[in-house]
Amino acid sequence: MAADARLLNKYQIGVWAPFAQEVRLQIAETTHLMVQDQRGWWRFEAKEDLAGLDYAFLVDGSSPFPDPRSLSQPYGVHGRSRFIDHSSFQWTDAEWNAPPLGSGVIYELHIGTFTPEGTFDGAIARLDHLVNLGVSHVEVMPVAEFPGDRGWGYDGVDLYAPHHAYGGPEGLKRFVNASHERGLAVLLDVVYNHFGPDGNYLSQFGPYFSDRNKTPWGDSVNLDGDGSVEVRRFLIDNALMWLRDYHFDGLRLDAVHALFDYSATHFLEQLAREVEEFASQSGRNLVLVAESDWNDPKVVQPRKSGGYGLTAQWSDDFHHALHACLTGETAGYYSDFGQIEQVKKALESGFVYDGVYSSYRNRNHGLSAVGVPLDRFVICLQNHDQIGNRAQGERSSQLMSVDGLLAGAAVLLTAASIPLLFQGEEWGASTPFQYFTAHQDERIAKAVSEGRKKEFGSFNWQTDNVPDPQSVSTFARSKLDWDELNREPHRTVLQWHRALIELRRSLPALGNGRPYAVKTECGSTLRVDRGSLLVRCSFDSEAPSVEVSVSGRVLLRSGYDR
Amino acid sequence: MAADARLLNKYQIGVWAPFAQEVRLQIAETTHLMVQDQRGWWRFEAKEDLAGLDYAFLVDGSSPFPDPRSLSQPYGVHGRSRFIDHSSFQWTDAEWNAPPLGSGVIYELHIGTFTPEGTFDGAIARLDHLVNLGVSHVEVMPVAEFPGDRGWGYDGVDLYAPHHAYGGPEGLKRFVNASHERGLAVLLDVVYNHFGPDGNYLSQFGPYFSDRNKTPWGDSVNLDGDGSVEVRRFLIDNALMWLRDYHFDGLRLDAVHALFDYSATHFLEQLAREVEEFASQSGRNLVLVAESDWNDPKVVQPRKSGGYGLTAQWSDDFHHALHACLTGETAGYYSDFGQIEQVKKALESGFVYDGVYSSYRNRNHGLSAVGVPLDRFVICLQNHDQIGNRAQGERSSQLMSVDGLLAGAAVLLTAASIPLLFQGEEWGASTPFQYFTAHQDERIAKAVSEGRKKEFGSFNWQTDNVPDPQSVSTFARSKLDWDELNREPHRTVLQWHRALIELRRSLPALGNGRPYAVKTECGSTLRVDRGSLLVRCSFDSEAPSVEVSVSGRVLLRSGYDR
Repeated sequence: MAADARLLNKYQIGVWAPFAQEVRLQIAETTHLMVQDQRGWWRFEAKEDLAGLDYAFLVDGSSPFPDPRSLSQPYGVHGRSRFIDHSSFQWTDAEWNAPPLGSGVIYELHIGTFTPEGTFDGAIARLDHLVNLGVSHVEVMPVAEFPGDRGWGYDGVDLYAPHHAYGGPEGLKRFVNASHERGLAVLLDVVYNHFGPDGNYLSQFGPYFSDRNKTPWGDSVNLDGDGSVEVRRFLIDNALMWLRDYHFDGLRLDAVHALFDYSATHFLEQLAREVEEFASQSGRNLVLVAESDWNDPKVVQPRKSGGYGLTAQWSDDFHHALHACLTGETAGYYSDFGQIEQVKKALESGFVYDGVYSSYRNRNHGLSAVGVPLDRFVICLQNHDQIGNRAQGERSSQLMSVDGLLAGAAVLLTAASIPLLFQGEEWGASTPFQYFTAHQDERIAKAVSEGRKKEFGSFNWQTDNVPDPQSVSTFARSKLDWDELNREPHRTVLQWHRALIELRRSLPALGNGRPYAVKTECGSTLRVDRGSLLVRCSFDSEAPSVEVSVSGRVLLRSGYDR
Repeated sequence: MAADARLLNKYQIGVWAPFAQEVRLQIAETTHLMVQDQRGWWRFEAKEDLAGLDYAFLVDGSSPFPDPRSLSQPYGVHGRSRFIDHSSFQWTDAEWNAPPLGSGVIYELHIGTFTPEGTFDGAIARLDHLVNLGVSHVEVMPVAEFPGDRGWGYDGVDLYAPHHAYGGPEGLKRFVNASHERGLAVLLDVVYNHFGPDGNYLSQFGPYFSDRNKTPWGDSVNLDGDGSVEVRRFLIDNALMWLRDYHFDGLRLDAVHALFDYSATHFLEQLAREVEEFASQSGRNLVLVAESDWNDPKVVQPRKSGGYGLTAQWSDDFHHALHACLTGETAGYYSDFGQIEQVKKALESGFVYDGVYSSYRNRNHGLSAVGVPLDRFVICLQNHDQIGNRAQGERSSQLMSVDGLLAGAAVLLTAASIPLLFQGEEWGASTPFQYFTAHQDERIAKAVSEGRKKEFGSFNWQTDNVPDPQSVSTFARSKLDWDELNREPHRTVLQWHRALIELRRSLPALGNGRPYAVKTECGSTLRVDRGSLLVRCSFDSEAPSVEVSVSGRVLLRSGYDR
């Protein structure tokens, strides 16, 4: 694997600033002139061990800026960086290797709201719950330092620094180590398609951004222009750091459709190749999962047939199809969905929109993924986006009856693709997952709120009583209430999920990727045949119901609401 | 093939205007209300044969606009459109089919400057010269209606209308027919990546453009956004029209790297598939050649291995490598070239920059094309861009000695890729090919001039005496002087080209695509072995020379300057 270009050893520090005339390193009150190296890199050789010291860079006489590759930001995004020596942590997972993702179940969680403490250590205390639930992979929403002390994490700016409010580098290592000790693989959600607007000092150092393409969040990351070799290195070194220094078993890549790259080797292809090389050298099962709005099988197809060769990609189509059938919602992008045949199509071939016309997009969308193994798609009934990007952050449990929830879970957890659960989904949590931030810049806070209201327009959602993202209570409200676990209907919902996951793990016919036959009956019933297993799910909008049987014997039957 | 959605028959006219509340068709002084059809199309059914009539559209009470799919603009880009009945032309090429491009030689010409007349009919009178020269394919620079009566053609706005100053639809048909009668295939240069700024009324009709990506010429064409189904149809129907109604044997696609398309099926892939379907139905050899700055083998790789499946692509690397070695120029993008090993690499594998770092671009560029047959690359010693985008429009003959020219021609015309000659190159024409326009809008004219001067900056070219593009004399100066043909050194240069093309056609070892061995000797000599043929070319900057021998016998030897 490529060496990390920044910290060659704990006595040396480097920074890429190709346009600078002078770069100074500030440690305590002393500044040191850095020496220009090759291709825009500046170096400083220290006489002392730098670990634990706080520092900053001054570019051409600027005020002190944090290190773009800072490993720790104990004072937040605007403060000084801290040198970290990764070798000091005592790992106890030497025997660990992750199980195949294709036969797993993913559990997505957000460190800040998963537990009352909102920290890595708080999450460790709840890992046994996940073991009992039966999931195989934990997927942690972004932890890279973002502004303030609460947020979803998608506006991170110090991509190498685990958030100080969560417990920083040491806390994160404890969390991954503890997960491995319990047999849980851990994936990290990383955001390479944009950076947050607040505390983003990257442009002070180099051409990290390009105005050639627009993303929903502003200028795109410079993946194919002047200087892009180092920008790509910056991101790929980051990916390798999480896998190497934090022992993550894989990464979930946020919104890859906003990675604008027209060079002959797409960034995703380079990333996948380098991660594969590292996995092969280290003998580890490492995976890359893409969130993609392209509906393009290329993302997971082998590189030798022109694909990018990632392990798996999300199928939003599956979510939208199932959600629309269970809720009857038709606003916004749900207008493209609502037919039971679309659930069938998503189950059988990954995408619903595989080149056909989408009236919501007013264009043809996607490409057929027939031939792509189904265990290369991650599917869900809800995730952080589908919940949190609603005006009120309502979960499925607020939008459908208990029997609807049970039906959705049965279709999801018996599918041939990889199911993903969002924290609390397993017990039908009544707490919402709302959008919360702690921007220190008032203008940014206001722009974010207004941007979200605009987005809600296409759904005709009420926007006059949207929770204020900046309010602490919005964050507090979004925390899971673990006491619910002992109450109905939560106990029933949890038992249902446990039973389905147990079935999935024990019944060979239910192994991911195993083929199955899906039929629709009478326009509202879905019948899934997987060898000895039969799932019959009625999407009757008044009284949805589901029945799961094995070899003709009914194992699970909904009927909570009756 | 897809039917042309516009003119179903000569009694019906349609136009796509998805946002309009009302569209009127104006014929003579009468306006007719059009009827809204599906997906934003408006139709009008006439009682009379519309052929030959002039018309325009009024959108929501606007002034009259020409038809975006106008087949003829007799009064220029701002005037009315004219209905054309394609069935009236008497073709005499029923027996014609184009020879394979892979074993051909292309001759690029510009109708306005190829002959004193500057018309299709003028060009017909010179076709015998091309037959005698021995080329197989004529490539016509863009003819779609552009502003004014002179220009290169890359700022066309009426993509379906052959330029009125060249002779319009009838003239173009006569030209293609006459070429076929003489055994010459004809390719048309089409521009789908941008439209000219002047006379561009497309946005009055629909979402043809997108501000998500920037091209050097402004907003990109909307290939993947809302409404893009019809925009793609607009372009692909255009391609099919040239092949079907004008009998072109193929298209050269301008700057495909500026076709921004992130949908799962790239525009080029759709275009290639539809053209292939039409070729298969009509039993014709039809080709698509891309000008591409991606250096990406994907452009010509088969679609089943993730490529776009075009027939061939230009290799600018070959030009730059050969040009830099023969002229010693090192400014601008030539700074990436100048080593004889780069000529060898381009000859052997298509690209010089195949993933390696380019200091001019300050990024890694391209991807290896090893395994791609060499006859899928079009190569040249000069073309309209490499000449005309110089400040003074100097040809190679102004930049190198006659022996340098002869050496370059020998390397080019014995290569395994497809050689392209630019009009007059075969006799070392002394006339320049400068940049000329006839914009009617002063601001656009000024912006174009200033933009070009800025571009010249990276070459350190003098920009204070750049010929004025708007001046008629710049156009006149760029016309070929056919009287030169009888003078030296032009006769010698012409004979040299004829002999090399004759050799290429007659010697089996020189068939395109046949493998060969290229070596460099003493840092300045290139030795090309192709079976019985041996080319030894010395790039000595003082006295370049070349020797072409077959089976040990010297057939051609330079030495004009000695």
